Amino acid sequence: MVCLPVLTMVFHRDRWHLQTDMSEKFSLHSRLAADTFLVDDWPLCRVLLMNDSRFPWLILVPRQNGLRDFDEIAAGDKPTFFAEIDRASRALRAETSAEKLNVAALGNMVPQLHVHVVARFAADAAWPAPVWGVGEAIPYSTLQVDALIVALRDAAKL
Amino acid sequence: MVCLPVLTMVFHRDRWHLQTDMSEKFSLHSRLAADTFLVDDWPLCRVLLMNDSRFPWLILVPRQNGLRDFDEIAAGDKPTFFAEIDRASRALRAETSAEKLNVAALGNMVPQLHVHVVARFAADAAWPAPVWGVGEAIPYSTLQVDALIVALRDAAKL
Repeated sequence: MVCLPVLTMVFHRDRWHLQTDMSEKFSLHSRLAADTFLVDDWPLCRVLLMNDSRFPWLILVPRQNGLRDFDEIAAGDKPTFFAEIDRASRALRAETSAEKLNVAALGNMVPQLHVHVVARFAADAAWPAPVWGVGEAIPYSTLQVDALIVALRDAAKL
Repeated sequence: MVCLPVLTMVFHRDRWHLQTDMSEKFSLHSRLAADTFLVDDWPLCRVLLMNDSRFPWLILVPRQNGLRDFDEIAAGDKPTFFAEIDRASRALRAETSAEKLNVAALGNMVPQLHVHVVARFAADAAWPAPVWGVGEAIPYSTLQVDALIVALRDAAKL
């Protein structure tokens, strides 16, 4: 495969942006797309909110195709990758007063590399167990999710 | 609290080492100590092997007291922290031919910051679910664990 730099126009947050793309178009796994809302695109990662109102739960997906494991991020992208995990943690903590944060890259079911950052509380539906596979998700209402996404974007501002 | 550099002698891997310690003596949580074997001390983290032969499973614990969440590592220590997570991943992959690696900092039960790095296989006892809370651990035999620790130390050499 030959990769050439491509300039593309991307509509995001109410305006068009010129974006340099060194690879093919980024493709989000259909399961992640179905289970989440778009919060933002940060320099490296797409930021998603899991549609489960029981847990304030962000998912970071590096916008590069073909990544699977946590250590496959290119050396040059690692500082950004980890800074964005921290940024998601800070946003969740600021917005939800999380008692604990869970950070995890599992990917047993969805092979595309993605990092869960979940705000946890001693009174939440899964505590102290991990959140995966616990009961059924309770989707957000449109009002709820719109407000939460705005609040998380604000809390995540650098 | 006033922190002064303290030089201490530490016996590790058959000899004494002089160690600079900027804080009080590192203390490993009793639950982690009870559930694991010592593999090594890397520059930042203590490296432990979970005593569950169903899953090749390393746990990294930064040797600093008082850390809880993944984003609490000091900025200056972050490159080492992430390099050691990658190093654990490489060692497990080299030694076990892992099909997938799970990387997670949960800490809901044990508050001391620790990072799980688990080699996963489509035929393992929990797949595709996460490993936490699945069935009962099957402890290693002494022979098994001694060989695995030697092999993981070798595979983790830089």
